[in-house]
Amino acid sequence: MERITAKYYIETPLDLEKSAQLLAGEQSSGTFIAVPGETEELKQRFAARVESITPMDTANEPAIPGVLSAGGKYQRAMIEVSWSIENFGYNLPVMVSTLQGNLYELTQFTGLKLMDLELPASFATAFKGPKFGIAGCRKLTGVYNRPLIGTIIKPSIGMTPEQTAALVNTLALAGIDFIKDDELLGSSANSPFDKRVDAIMEVINRHADRSGKKVMYAFNISDDIDQMQRNYEKILRSGGTSAMISLNSVGLAGVKKIGEIGELAIHGHRNGWGMLNRHPLLGIEFPAYQQLWRLAGVDQIHVNGIQNKFWESDDSVVRSIEACFKPLLGGYSVLPVVSSGQWGGQAVETYRRVPSVDLLYMAGGGIMAHPDGPAGGVVALQQAWQGAVDGLSVAETAAKYPEFGHSVSVFGKKQA
Amino acid sequence: MERITAKYYIETPLDLEKSAQLLAGEQSSGTFIAVPGETEELKQRFAARVESITPMDTANEPAIPGVLSAGGKYQRAMIEVSWSIENFGYNLPVMVSTLQGNLYELTQFTGLKLMDLELPASFATAFKGPKFGIAGCRKLTGVYNRPLIGTIIKPSIGMTPEQTAALVNTLALAGIDFIKDDELLGSSANSPFDKRVDAIMEVINRHADRSGKKVMYAFNISDDIDQMQRNYEKILRSGGTSAMISLNSVGLAGVKKIGEIGELAIHGHRNGWGMLNRHPLLGIEFPAYQQLWRLAGVDQIHVNGIQNKFWESDDSVVRSIEACFKPLLGGYSVLPVVSSGQWGGQAVETYRRVPSVDLLYMAGGGIMAHPDGPAGGVVALQQAWQGAVDGLSVAETAAKYPEFGHSVSVFGKKQA
Repeated sequence: MERITAKYYIETPLDLEKSAQLLAGEQSSGTFIAVPGETEELKQRFAARVESITPMDTANEPAIPGVLSAGGKYQRAMIEVSWSIENFGYNLPVMVSTLQGNLYELTQFTGLKLMDLELPASFATAFKGPKFGIAGCRKLTGVYNRPLIGTIIKPSIGMTPEQTAALVNTLALAGIDFIKDDELLGSSANSPFDKRVDAIMEVINRHADRSGKKVMYAFNISDDIDQMQRNYEKILRSGGTSAMISLNSVGLAGVKKIGEIGELAIHGHRNGWGMLNRHPLLGIEFPAYQQLWRLAGVDQIHVNGIQNKFWESDDSVVRSIEACFKPLLGGYSVLPVVSSGQWGGQAVETYRRVPSVDLLYMAGGGIMAHPDGPAGGVVALQQAWQGAVDGLSVAETAAKYPEFGHSVSVFGKKQA
Repeated sequence: MERITAKYYIETPLDLEKSAQLLAGEQSSGTFIAVPGETEELKQRFAARVESITPMDTANEPAIPGVLSAGGKYQRAMIEVSWSIENFGYNLPVMVSTLQGNLYELTQFTGLKLMDLELPASFATAFKGPKFGIAGCRKLTGVYNRPLIGTIIKPSIGMTPEQTAALVNTLALAGIDFIKDDELLGSSANSPFDKRVDAIMEVINRHADRSGKKVMYAFNISDDIDQMQRNYEKILRSGGTSAMISLNSVGLAGVKKIGEIGELAIHGHRNGWGMLNRHPLLGIEFPAYQQLWRLAGVDQIHVNGIQNKFWESDDSVVRSIEACFKPLLGGYSVLPVVSSGQWGGQAVETYRRVPSVDLLYMAGGGIMAHPDGPAGGVVALQQAWQGAVDGLSVAETAAKYPEFGHSVSVFGKKQA
């Protein structure tokens, strides 16, 4: 019978083997009463199994509150635990409750983080997954052999549909591939969702008719299920190609319901992620997290960026991008969305760490505040990536391409 | 214009006022580019506002990774930030992205926890909320003037519908008010959802016909949206009165979609909660958390229990119960579900800390392993609460009531 395996980073002042078994018992058939007719065979069929325990370093203080150590030491370890697919079948929420549920309550652990998952082959027949992924998003935008260049409408909230459409017009003229709503904007008092779609799609469709290039705009449809469906239909009717969902705020069942429609590329925003990941020994790591959303049908997912303005390290960002590129169940392709403080100067380092151009590369000020105007900003980002792929340094790329050179002279200083 | 106010517990090595303003800016109209036609008035309309800053103690080490302190000190504070309802209206996911989104990514904070919310009066017209709450759950079970006494089917997973129904039969004969599936059991290989409902409701309906008392059974419907709706209908058709949902695993949009149906009492299971709350300076506290689920229509919500087997402190449990009892928008009543290691001995302390019997009080071994059998266990729990309400000590209650006395002699020793 197929099994699902989860890898956890744990910390405990108690015996490692016993603690791992406790987790496995708590999350499956562990029990304190004998049930008439219950056989050992039946119990084993549904029992979680500890597959491996790899001790790591020790700490003198507990990472999160829990039982105190008698000897003052807290042992860390990687453990792998597996469950039979018979426990929950293809039910994602119950799988999440099994892998990420009450185990976080166990006082015996002073640290617990879900690091990665291994899903069985039959999941591929049960989950539609992303309809578009990397190849589909390239086809929808007509962009090949370089990252899709995108930007976010700023200010996040407060602009009217007309002001937003004017900005979209500027960006479309500049040759942008992708634009998105901010996650703070759903349907505000001065920018109702339908009116915003109308105003923006009029601009995007006009440019598409003129140039043959249709800008992908990810409208933030996050809302109740019924309203998300109406928003989705509105985008589709208006000729749009993408819908954005705030994954953590909507939740897994809601995202899967929308993801399964499969007519628009789903842009997965992970705002709230810091709450789930920022502590090194609590929560979930991206290699596990992104698999759940790929199963739910997300085509694009945020991974932060190299040298970002947030707290996340470059190493963590690299791991996240690599996790997206790892085939899931033989495919289930998802496009990593690189953003936060990006202006192009990070392209060289990004490509050095992960040599691929299969990215949606988002920049804000690097486009809108470019000294040659937004068109110069978009070209500069394309140049930055060309330089990166050609093995040039930032300085060499700046010397070769004037627009990127201007980026470096303006934004490079701020960075340094 | 109405405003939504959120209270955060923060830690930062930087200036408190500037850090609070940074959070407010990041989560609203903070921007780096001037937009043509944008007025200061429009910007102020959508800007988040820092309402108060209350400095607290300092720490010498950052609670979570972020910017390092130049002087080696990390200042903690409570801050209140408010948003106009014009920013997101009655859109719960966008409200969550605003209150709990990218702010957790800000490296300027070395601790950030959402503590509480104040919602504006007009939310009462926009959200149906819990259909049953405390009064409705009492009416459905016919239990008044004492806590509802409940239990969880154990082992969590592995039993057949017939085995489960036999256990339900024993419990119904014992006079139990409430039974629930474990969160690990949705539809397993040997306990498909529909078959389990059939087997269990046959027992419950038979006892109801006989005694007039219908046991409330919370079947775990957690699944995809469409399947949850089918599961819900199945329970309703079979004469059931409650559906359980794993809140964090299904997510806010999915829970609200089901909660709004309003035909079954929604039992809200918060498994995964430790991930969101266990660190003192990261995540969300229950007074904020439970409001979101009440808006989504949850009638019962887990709060852990006094002297529980998990990591949570009694003080935290008390705060959670009190949060449930605080009227939301004039009502939106929710029944706190007390569980984890409860056998009745904690009733006195629970009532001393929160003098109310409006609880669903869950015990496992205290019922099934009672020396007088399950019926003795159920009676003992009722006696424990009668003693607590009458101001008796555990010893006095044990002396007065034989069944509870037997509980103390068996379970009291384990506890001590």
